[in-house]
Amino acid sequence: MNNPVHKSNKAIFRPFQGLLLFLLLLSSLHAYSENGYDLWLRYSLIENEAIRTQYTQFSSKIRVAGNSPTINALKSELMTGLNKMLDITPQISSVSTESYALIIATISNLPDNADITGMPEINDEGYIIMTQNVNGNERLIVTARTDIGLLYGTFNLLQLMQQQRDLQNIEVASSPRINLRLLNHWDNLDRTVERGYAGASIWNWQKLPEYIDQRYIDYARANASIGINGTVVTNVNANALILTPQYVDKVKALADVFRPYGIKVYLTARFSAPVELGDLDTADPLDPAVQEWWNVKANEIYNQIPDFGGFLVKANSEGQPGPQNYGRNHVDGANMLAAAVKPHGGIVMWRAFVYSPDEGADRASQASKEFVPYDGQFAENVLVQVKNGPIDFQPREPFHPMFGAMPKTPLMMEFQITQEYLGFSTHLVFLPKLFQEVLHSRTYQPNRNTRVADIIAGTEGNQALTGMAGVANIGSDINWTGHIFGQANWFGFGKLAWDPDYSLEQIAEEWLKMTFTPDPEFVNSFLPELLESREMPVSYMTPLGLHHMMDAGHHYGPGPWISNMSRPDWTSVYYHKADKSGIGFDRTTTTGSGAVNDYAPELAKLFNDPATTPEELLLWFHHLPWTYKLKNGRTLWDNLGMKYQEGVDEVGQMLETWKSLRPYVDEERYEEILMHLNIQFKEAKWWKNACMLYFQEFSEMPFPPEMTVPDKDLSYYKSLKFPYAPGIRPSWD
Amino acid sequence: MNNPVHKSNKAIFRPFQGLLLFLLLLSSLHAYSENGYDLWLRYSLIENEAIRTQYTQFSSKIRVAGNSPTINALKSELMTGLNKMLDITPQISSVSTESYALIIATISNLPDNADITGMPEINDEGYIIMTQNVNGNERLIVTARTDIGLLYGTFNLLQLMQQQRDLQNIEVASSPRINLRLLNHWDNLDRTVERGYAGASIWNWQKLPEYIDQRYIDYARANASIGINGTVVTNVNANALILTPQYVDKVKALADVFRPYGIKVYLTARFSAPVELGDLDTADPLDPAVQEWWNVKANEIYNQIPDFGGFLVKANSEGQPGPQNYGRNHVDGANMLAAAVKPHGGIVMWRAFVYSPDEGADRASQASKEFVPYDGQFAENVLVQVKNGPIDFQPREPFHPMFGAMPKTPLMMEFQITQEYLGFSTHLVFLPKLFQEVLHSRTYQPNRNTRVADIIAGTEGNQALTGMAGVANIGSDINWTGHIFGQANWFGFGKLAWDPDYSLEQIAEEWLKMTFTPDPEFVNSFLPELLESREMPVSYMTPLGLHHMMDAGHHYGPGPWISNMSRPDWTSVYYHKADKSGIGFDRTTTTGSGAVNDYAPELAKLFNDPATTPEELLLWFHHLPWTYKLKNGRTLWDNLGMKYQEGVDEVGQMLETWKSLRPYVDEERYEEILMHLNIQFKEAKWWKNACMLYFQEFSEMPFPPEMTVPDKDLSYYKSLKFPYAPGIRPSWD
Repeated sequence: MNNPVHKSNKAIFRPFQGLLLFLLLLSSLHAYSENGYDLWLRYSLIENEAIRTQYTQFSSKIRVAGNSPTINALKSELMTGLNKMLDITPQISSVSTESYALIIATISNLPDNADITGMPEINDEGYIIMTQNVNGNERLIVTARTDIGLLYGTFNLLQLMQQQRDLQNIEVASSPRINLRLLNHWDNLDRTVERGYAGASIWNWQKLPEYIDQRYIDYARANASIGINGTVVTNVNANALILTPQYVDKVKALADVFRPYGIKVYLTARFSAPVELGDLDTADPLDPAVQEWWNVKANEIYNQIPDFGGFLVKANSEGQPGPQNYGRNHVDGANMLAAAVKPHGGIVMWRAFVYSPDEGADRASQASKEFVPYDGQFAENVLVQVKNGPIDFQPREPFHPMFGAMPKTPLMMEFQITQEYLGFSTHLVFLPKLFQEVLHSRTYQPNRNTRVADIIAGTEGNQALTGMAGVANIGSDINWTGHIFGQANWFGFGKLAWDPDYSLEQIAEEWLKMTFTPDPEFVNSFLPELLESREMPVSYMTPLGLHHMMDAGHHYGPGPWISNMSRPDWTSVYYHKADKSGIGFDRTTTTGSGAVNDYAPELAKLFNDPATTPEELLLWFHHLPWTYKLKNGRTLWDNLGMKYQEGVDEVGQMLETWKSLRPYVDEERYEEILMHLNIQFKEAKWWKNACMLYFQEFSEMPFPPEMTVPDKDLSYYKSLKFPYAPGIRPSWD
Repeated sequence: MNNPVHKSNKAIFRPFQGLLLFLLLLSSLHAYSENGYDLWLRYSLIENEAIRTQYTQFSSKIRVAGNSPTINALKSELMTGLNKMLDITPQISSVSTESYALIIATISNLPDNADITGMPEINDEGYIIMTQNVNGNERLIVTARTDIGLLYGTFNLLQLMQQQRDLQNIEVASSPRINLRLLNHWDNLDRTVERGYAGASIWNWQKLPEYIDQRYIDYARANASIGINGTVVTNVNANALILTPQYVDKVKALADVFRPYGIKVYLTARFSAPVELGDLDTADPLDPAVQEWWNVKANEIYNQIPDFGGFLVKANSEGQPGPQNYGRNHVDGANMLAAAVKPHGGIVMWRAFVYSPDEGADRASQASKEFVPYDGQFAENVLVQVKNGPIDFQPREPFHPMFGAMPKTPLMMEFQITQEYLGFSTHLVFLPKLFQEVLHSRTYQPNRNTRVADIIAGTEGNQALTGMAGVANIGSDINWTGHIFGQANWFGFGKLAWDPDYSLEQIAEEWLKMTFTPDPEFVNSFLPELLESREMPVSYMTPLGLHHMMDAGHHYGPGPWISNMSRPDWTSVYYHKADKSGIGFDRTTTTGSGAVNDYAPELAKLFNDPATTPEELLLWFHHLPWTYKLKNGRTLWDNLGMKYQEGVDEVGQMLETWKSLRPYVDEERYEEILMHLNIQFKEAKWWKNACMLYFQEFSEMPFPPEMTVPDKDLSYYKSLKFPYAPGIRPSWD
């Protein structure tokens, strides 16, 4: 068995799988069994002699200038990486007098003969990696304006090495285009994780602050390696206790671990905290006592955590308290908190995910209707955090119409890395492609060529604050994300937060090489599957612009029949509106909700007409007859069935491709991914069968010949119950 | 730095701990950083040349006879162990024609010249390890009556090697003295673990049955390596859903993983399941429809899991339903379930942990009063599972008086490995010493020399069924038990379940050698600390026979002032009865509850008189004046203070000893244990201060000079709140 990896430190045998596997084992005892904990920082030994020789030369004489916790972290990572990749114990000097093969120093600390003129400008977090020829000898330079820049540069250098890239004449100059690159943890103080599918929260609040789990350090390493520079450690459905001294001490311990890695800690602020913590009888943002309470609270926190990032707030949404409870508005609430943290350099991220009191209003328009009128009224240290689409992290949504509609307000992007609506941690879905699809969507406002990426990167408004947040898919599972491929979504989010125009192919290729093997046979085989995997759940869950058809509460599996919830816009029938006449949500100006007008006129015009609406969004904007003809000349009904089948078949194909790659992957991770792909294949069929059987009750048409006929009837699929599906909000349990 | 272990596969550096540590790292980059996942199955490379040569010779020519999933598991473990300890790839043959250096075969498969006459008899799970000289060549033989016996023997051989024991002329013959050696998991279907302090449940019910976590396999390996042969995977506070086909399919997947390792799966049966699952309107055990429901349910389960072990039941206790809800008794309930599983060879474990409806009754007598009269009435496939003491897993309790009082009933021991009352997973406490203290306690009935161990091993009653259960301390934490030393309690429980007379020193030494290093410097230094650690929490929490003084609900930290709960016998004041006149629970016949009479007359006589009551149980049986003189001539009050202080000081000493062993332990585990010891030291002082300040309100006496005066006042300790302490039962949250 051609296994490119190394010596085992774990038994990898599954006896219950019988003798065949046992014989396999006999021949592969030395196969390095991995559990996925090391993420993309595996630093496995480089077996390519030429490459290893080149890297070893560059590592023969190393200078790292400076001395700070960040520099120490840099040195540690460098030594660990070089030691494991090259099997050497590198010696690192800090003196400047000699000539080195590798120099890592801020620009001000570079030797005189180190010439970086001609390289692009970099900002304070950016870095340069370049080789220079000094009297015949090539040397490698990593430089930056700051220690953090050097850390990012060093991580990048180690990643280039893991990818076994030729470093001769390398020239890299990279700066992040977005200031705030944050993870949002929907983690509760009891260690449950709302919409978490990778075990319990990694935050062990009971043992903090005294006990520092190695995971906290490795979490910081992993995030710094992809440029993430902030983390909101608590759930947006917030608990006021996190603001008490008992818990702030624990948060401080985390902040101390993360600081050397350039990561700031943020907290969610429960708006009613002044009341719940027993100090006041109101949380009215215009009440001076309330304002003073938050000022004092901010001082308490900053006394412990001088570089505390600030607050993330979910207010007046899904039962969370907010300014409206006191007859005030979002501007009043956000600006009060902003004033409290401003003296300390903190910020407030105010979420736009709100519900209209008018349950009849089109769900897709509610946030826009409420927030757009406030454009320009928020304090300068406030960002409004907007989900990528107007509904709620569906497999595919058009971009959120607020992007482009609030030119005087810094809008922060909120993506969901955890797969609440995309198969939990059992489905392989490459989300960076979803993220970039949104980032590259043209908003047509303020300018004709403006894209969502330009809005959040501030290149349009030139605002000081820019940000992108990803709802983390991280938990206590040994492999962090439940599914090994969930790591790719964490990795890719970081890369796109650093540069929204980072190539998807490159993200996928880098991650595959570092996570498994740079062997081109492996990479070239699975790279296309990974890129296509983003479209698969769209096809087998919600094709052609359908959305919000999952089962209620836990959101696991199909539930197009869900029709009875406390709000109509929490049901499935509200969104697909299937009936005898057809299917889809009419958001046109002529006969529908008019939500198309939330977009720029150019887009509104396109979306207002089925003929000019992109087919992948057709039923998002239009209610169309089952017999409506699509571009391929087939009926909408046939196309639905074909799309569902296509999604299933593509997963089946991906599964077969994975099986063919057995020789390139260690036993444990190969088996884990294989089991997950089998579950995904089974559940893709489940979605197809449940949805098509349900819709057939309205269409009353035969399934298209391309579609495999369901082997069970609708009542079976309706009967399935999952009382303990993970990630559900306790209060909904 | 003299570090006896090997190459790193993980960054182990804590930059926030600053430069000193960083310099340490420079010199120890090759230190093998371990996360504790491998437990005592690390199989680290043996550097002692002589020993490795001897083992390599024995491994040069190996025969393993037979072919079964168990034999495959045996071969896998043998190859993994030899490969890692000796850095060889062993070749294993199954043919019998040649002469081998190591032969692993059942007695019936041994070569004719393999003579085991003269070795002690072994039972079906026992094994023999011996060397034999065959024409000048020494060979090693592992033999047994069954494949499982061979697996146990092979695990034991690998453990001898990890301890670097000389195998020349080795002769081992070992058989388990107790049939049922079980773990009890108090794991809920939502992955919370009642009284669990090591993260979420390792059972990922959502991904079962399709997804087999590597943990399930390694869990089976670890248990088999110490002889555990059964596991109850669900909480005794039971959920009827586990009995539905949807979940039985998941349990079957676990059973299939565990079977090759000789581990049977058991479930907790919720007594009201026939009603809760919607099939019947009663669960009356004498109702034929109810009996039939359980018969059908048992058939369902055994169709999926032919070797299903049976049911564990908590009935009519702490709100759990039971036969008394229908006017029936424990015998009626247990025998009904027993009848359902009997045709399939299953058993019922019926817990004796019950509460008397009469809240005035002495808590210590309630189980005895209720169960002893039933002696001889239970069906032959029922065991009554009794906690080690009459209250509830306190740091020290006298043995449970039911042991010895029910000669016609198989009593199964229930120990708690998880540290509900012993510092959660932050305190280092060597529980095997607590376990053996109970097992070696003399019951004086039925015979004068009978010990608890003899009762549960059945050597008195000769009953067919014997068993010992340990409430697991296992969770999803990477190191399984939260605290590395928690692994020693899992390990030691297994060893004592196999043989209640196994030497504690040997358990401690074996575990230290395999978990860290066989280096005598290390082992000899920490072995005494480990053995003494059992007494420390007794001293700093509940000295001199005090009990049940923890905070309410979560049981974390001291709460001697707890006085207001829904039952008086859930409070602390009920148990310590401190007042101006003195402290302690009077259980004498003369002035007290008379609970001493639950014991044999010889013991009742001893316990009835403070002068003849062992001092470590003094306040368990007597309420004594603060000025009562103990053997050392000092007052009870002074002795209390001295004991509390002693516990604190001993933890401080253990902490210093650990620091001195830095050179022998890898960075990650050394730091983890150091942080935990610091927390334990802090919390020991907390217990001492809170309890002594509280009791001083009654004694009104000055603290003894030996005792460090508390630095805070009582109101501070009373004010501490821990709303999200782990392990609490959700319904109490």
